[in-house]
Amino acid sequence: MSKSVVIAVDAMGGDNSPAKVISGISEYLKRNKNVFFRIFGVKKNIQNEIFKNSIDQNYFEIIECEDVVQNNDTPLSAAKKKNTSMWQAINDVKEKKSNVIVSAGNTGALFVISKLNISMIEMISKPALAALWPNKIGMNIVLDLGANVECDEKNFEDFAIMGAALHNALFPKDKSKVALLNIGSEEIKGHETIKKAYQSMDAKKNNLYEFCGYIEGNHIMDGNINVIVTDGFTGNVALKTAEGTANFISTELKNALSNGLIAKISSLINIKNLKNFKKRLDPRLYNGAILLGLESPVIKSHGSTDYIGFANSLDVCVKTVEGKLIEKIKKNIIV
Amino acid sequence: MSKSVVIAVDAMGGDNSPAKVISGISEYLKRNKNVFFRIFGVKKNIQNEIFKNSIDQNYFEIIECEDVVQNNDTPLSAAKKKNTSMWQAINDVKEKKSNVIVSAGNTGALFVISKLNISMIEMISKPALAALWPNKIGMNIVLDLGANVECDEKNFEDFAIMGAALHNALFPKDKSKVALLNIGSEEIKGHETIKKAYQSMDAKKNNLYEFCGYIEGNHIMDGNINVIVTDGFTGNVALKTAEGTANFISTELKNALSNGLIAKISSLINIKNLKNFKKRLDPRLYNGAILLGLESPVIKSHGSTDYIGFANSLDVCVKTVEGKLIEKIKKNIIV
Repeated sequence: MSKSVVIAVDAMGGDNSPAKVISGISEYLKRNKNVFFRIFGVKKNIQNEIFKNSIDQNYFEIIECEDVVQNNDTPLSAAKKKNTSMWQAINDVKEKKSNVIVSAGNTGALFVISKLNISMIEMISKPALAALWPNKIGMNIVLDLGANVECDEKNFEDFAIMGAALHNALFPKDKSKVALLNIGSEEIKGHETIKKAYQSMDAKKNNLYEFCGYIEGNHIMDGNINVIVTDGFTGNVALKTAEGTANFISTELKNALSNGLIAKISSLINIKNLKNFKKRLDPRLYNGAILLGLESPVIKSHGSTDYIGFANSLDVCVKTVEGKLIEKIKKNIIV
Repeated sequence: MSKSVVIAVDAMGGDNSPAKVISGISEYLKRNKNVFFRIFGVKKNIQNEIFKNSIDQNYFEIIECEDVVQNNDTPLSAAKKKNTSMWQAINDVKEKKSNVIVSAGNTGALFVISKLNISMIEMISKPALAALWPNKIGMNIVLDLGANVECDEKNFEDFAIMGAALHNALFPKDKSKVALLNIGSEEIKGHETIKKAYQSMDAKKNNLYEFCGYIEGNHIMDGNINVIVTDGFTGNVALKTAEGTANFISTELKNALSNGLIAKISSLINIKNLKNFKKRLDPRLYNGAILLGLESPVIKSHGSTDYIGFANSLDVCVKTVEGKLIEKIKKNIIV
């Protein structure tokens, strides 16, 4: 426990767990050893995977939990089962035995149990779900992605601070550039809430971010803005529409590049470049949604990701702690 | 004037006009001769282009308009200039000299002047902006894309009818499948307005469309749903996010496929398939947004499209008239 970051890991969530979770831990330990894992779940299964991956016992402790949150559990039914690996991992952060919690399990359950157990940061009324979004230069943060269907202007201001603090923790720089997602760039565009948020954010100065006005959906991936703020309804639709579009194009491209012998030969010749292309768009790179607004970051790894993706969400865990995410939010929150 | 469809054409709107507009008319006349064009704009310039394209004089009439709506005109400043090609073309539909109006000019001006001049269909309180969206099988319709930032449940029901009537006019079939864009597929998901619209649409039966519940952003392009209904804020963000994603991927792909000699040779070998891929995603195919809810369809061609794209928006014009779009809306509108 003298390691700088202690991560509570729900080992039982997501496809192919605990195998991918433990392999993900093993993978992450190759990059960084200044970390300790408190692993929650069915001890026997976890031990097996630890053995396969030959993980040094200095880096982990297993905490036995008999129960597991199922994919078809509702958030409320899951919240009643206190001996699940998810519930216990969240509770570990509440009791300050760990700094951060990660799970690849049931998203709704993870967020409801987290909100039930971990206190909200003072002066923040709604938590927000943030994720990494690739752009032409690197990555930006978009939030909220579905935690709050309806938001007021104070929520937007909070999201801006939380998003900027997250961006700063993950990609340290002087000031993050923040913009509100809107349907035009002129000041008069959009609905009342967004216009009020614009006025308020434009008037206040802060040390964490530079307010850059409005951004439209077609510019999210340009790389000029680091943090894009929106309500959970719009953000969720935007994220899923982007996923659907990427999926559509890659299916069409796959058909084009494998349609007939010549196409297959041609693709083989060019395989290195196509691999680089696929790597740039690898969703495992962007794995890890972050619930912001609680006294501890809560990291959600995609249920369907593999050990590489899980290792990347461990990287997000460590950076939020080492980057002092929570302190940055508290210091900058507007009363 | 004995042609089945008479189109009022604003010849002066968009990049490279009137050249692309007149070439677009010439291109369209190769496919369909049962159409007559009333062309509004600067006669001398239009005549030049008509001459270059050798268009038979039986298919058009030019109506001189001295003035042109500029790209930097606000909708209100444009609405004051009554001798612009855009204003006169819209007025032509109002006076029933034409069946439908098309312009590649200033979008805001086109919609404001149309709303000022052409009556709303009775029982519809808000017009909606619809567009074609490619999917794995063909094309679907998404609306509203920005005409109304805030909507109530009656607006959603109207949009469903207008969208289904448009889909039916463009791609005749028995019943269109309609869904509401939401952030989950369960009945309890989303905001109050969308839940009320769901209840209401689920309870009412109609002859025009089958109500299929909710659809999420990642399924817009699957091809299972023909008409996707949303408010103008969400729709506009979704459309632009999809455009931005497609642009991002194609830039990355272009880099991957032209990075070095081997890549160039490989792309050359596979050029036919890549051409087919590009063709499937050619935005000119989807050119033409449609303002629905007025007593005449108003068709907006992209300002930056070329003559092929403009010809495709003429195809949309003809199909909305021949497919009896307005009659279908009126017959099915819910009182």
